[in-house]
Amino acid sequence: LAQRIVTLTTDFGVSEHYVGAIKGVILSLNPDAKIVDICNSVQSYDVLDGAITIANAYRYYPSDTIHMVVVDPGVGTTRRPIVATTERHIFLAPDNGVLSLVYEREERLSVRHITSEHFFLNPVSNTFHGRDVFAAIAGWMSKGVDAIKLGDEITDFVRFSAPKPKPLSPTSIKALVLRVDKFGNIITNLRPEDVPSIFQEPAGAFTITVGKVTINKVHQNYSQASPGELFAIIGSMGYVEISANRQPAAALAGVNKGAEVNVTFAAAAAAPQAAPAQ
Amino acid sequence: LAQRIVTLTTDFGVSEHYVGAIKGVILSLNPDAKIVDICNSVQSYDVLDGAITIANAYRYYPSDTIHMVVVDPGVGTTRRPIVATTERHIFLAPDNGVLSLVYEREERLSVRHITSEHFFLNPVSNTFHGRDVFAAIAGWMSKGVDAIKLGDEITDFVRFSAPKPKPLSPTSIKALVLRVDKFGNIITNLRPEDVPSIFQEPAGAFTITVGKVTINKVHQNYSQASPGELFAIIGSMGYVEISANRQPAAALAGVNKGAEVNVTFAAAAAAPQAAPAQ
Amino acid sequence: LAQRIVTLTTDFGVSEHYVGAIKGVILSLNPDAKIVDICNSVQSYDVLDGAITIANAYRYYPSDTIHMVVVDPGVGTTRRPIVATTERHIFLAPDNGVLSLVYEREERLSVRHITSEHFFLNPVSNTFHGRDVFAAIAGWMSKGVDAIKLGDEITDFVRFSAPKPKPLSPTSIKALVLRVDKFGNIITNLRPEDVPSIFQEPAGAFTITVGKVTINKVHQNYSQASPGELFAIIGSMGYVEISANRQPAAALAGVNKGAEVNVTFAAAAAAPQAAPAQ
Repeated sequence: LAQRIVTLTTDFGVSEHYVGAIKGVILSLNPDAKIVDICNSVQSYDVLDGAITIANAYRYYPSDTIHMVVVDPGVGTTRRPIVATTERHIFLAPDNGVLSLVYEREERLSVRHITSEHFFLNPVSNTFHGRDVFAAIAGWMSKGVDAIKLGDEITDFVRFSAPKPKPLSPTSIKALVLRVDKFGNIITNLRPEDVPSIFQEPAGAFTITVGKVTINKVHQNYSQASPGELFAIIGSMGYVEISANRQPAAALAGVNKGAEVNVTFAAAAAAPQAAPAQ
Repeated sequence: LAQRIVTLTTDFGVSEHYVGAIKGVILSLNPDAKIVDICNSVQSYDVLDGAITIANAYRYYPSDTIHMVVVDPGVGTTRRPIVATTERHIFLAPDNGVLSLVYEREERLSVRHITSEHFFLNPVSNTFHGRDVFAAIAGWMSKGVDAIKLGDEITDFVRFSAPKPKPLSPTSIKALVLRVDKFGNIITNLRPEDVPSIFQEPAGAFTITVGKVTINKVHQNYSQASPGELFAIIGSMGYVEISANRQPAAALAGVNKGAEVNVTFAAAAAAPQAAPAQ
Repeated sequence: LAQRIVTLTTDFGVSEHYVGAIKGVILSLNPDAKIVDICNSVQSYDVLDGAITIANAYRYYPSDTIHMVVVDPGVGTTRRPIVATTERHIFLAPDNGVLSLVYEREERLSVRHITSEHFFLNPVSNTFHGRDVFAAIAGWMSKGVDAIKLGDEITDFVRFSAPKPKPLSPTSIKALVLRVDKFGNIITNLRPEDVPSIFQEPAGAFTITVGKVTINKVHQNYSQASPGELFAIIGSMGYVEISANRQPAAALAGVNKGAEVNVTFAAAAAAPQAAPAQ
């Protein structure tokens, strides 16, 4: 129990002392805690970016991991600190929807409003609850304090839906760019099942327009593409991505997060094959 | 003892092997050491930036933590490697003032010139004492080697004062920007007690001029501000900060580290309330 | 054995969930694994940059460390996942040459093609073998699974030579910029023994031309240089570096990775002293 894993997903960055102070608070309470950075470079104030990040990492962790998810533009207001427990994991976060994509994926879920202020640092600043509230609670929980001790269960917690693509016709759909990653891969919010004919064998004809480029090819891996060619691929997050071979697709297309993605595709074959799980 | 915590505060960055080599040296000497990154992206060669970073993180760590603080533009010269022990913590650093803000905060302090070269890697490079000197000493100390074994106590260690605001009159003061953080918050070197009437209830009228903007409002948290509005707030480091709501104040003001901050404020009320501790 | 060290050297960056997912996979298999980031900001798709990074870090780690080195532009193709064991270390990587500089440094070497797919995550994505293949294998190996269980030994693994300087005459040589580091130091591919007279005592006359500057001075440390002066120095990686004092030499010279470095130097003295080991 003592070597409990505590993960960090925050927008505090790596250029100041913020994450270092958070880790100190946890380790002061429990020197045996095992702190793991998932990502401290979530885009500043971007709750959706934080939601996507934790949703694509937490399920790889062992049972009973404590995930601290702090993207918190409303720090110091009445927005609630919460603890969410699922069948296997524990999440600490501000109640601003940053756990929305976790909620989507978890059937058994209990969310509590953390009101047990005696566990907080004293005093609590108005601007850094990552340190004064969430790290302190993470430290105590890593020592065995149960969620039930932190506050009452609530059901009106904040949740939003991730932006979904909008079908325009049976053979066209409007999507958007969820994220551009370090490689310049364009991660859209399209699932393969939104555009089934594209990923059938044989693939139907299609066009994906994003920024200044139009894509009409699917590849199974990056190396199949010729230099400068953009293509669609089922990415490791389960979304359709637009990529290039050793080049940043987003720069080639001239797009960033939020850009529109317009897709036209052939009607699905009578008995479409399921897209392969990735 | 074996699971001793060793923290890293350096300007070696995260894009090369430097920090990885440092961690290897420590773990080779003590595979049970628990290495924690406070910040490896201190601004290059910027001793004050390093001093601010460690000063705002170390006190959150448990007793007997070993803090390695290596911002070391004088590496390879005769500047001394030192070990500083305070009541609760141990610091390893070049003797260039990077621990100055730790010295300010600590009453009981012993500083030693590390001369026990048999603990160093062999050979010692001229350009990377983070690896060859400080990591090696950190590894040995984490195994229980005492500071007293490293060299003689010195009293002429280098220390500087953090830049202090300069009162221009009883109701005006000139300060500067200590740091701009990842969110674009402008961290000044003003303490609330330097401008007491601003943080009184009710707040006196004031103007803070920084870059191309003038601020005359205090908020308790970011969300109270309207879009594009800049305001003063007592930040988590205990300094007055200029911030905006989900926007980078520094970009809005057009300033960076070192910029002037000019403040005029009302005379303090007869019995001023203490600014709330943050 | 359980607290086995697993290091990460990858180009997955620190701004998304990628590294967080990798760590989760390892810890799910072995919660006691000790994961250490060497560098996750290797330049995207840059196998040579990854090779330089791991080659300059691994030897500082204790015996039996497992080094995951994933710079993998060919992910999803038939390029093989491999495990390389040397006298003291274990390496997991795609077979694309990213371990070439490790091979150069190690006499006893055994490389195996990892074919034991039952150790992989299921399903395996086409784009993220760092998570689905290498992290899973690292997790199992950290629990004691031996390399011999992973697949057959191969001898036709991919290896390349690091770019070597090209002598143009007995007193001139053409080199290149291997890397520009966070400080702006220009790391060339010259070894001191390539230009012996430069580092003799007394040093022979020489000129190094790189970008728009010409260097004709050697210094032993950064602080010896006057402001704006560029000089040659034997760096901590064992290469000749071009540096400045508290300024980014690469920006002053206007160069980046890959730029040409032209050197003319005096003939070595009759009995040249060895350059000091660094």
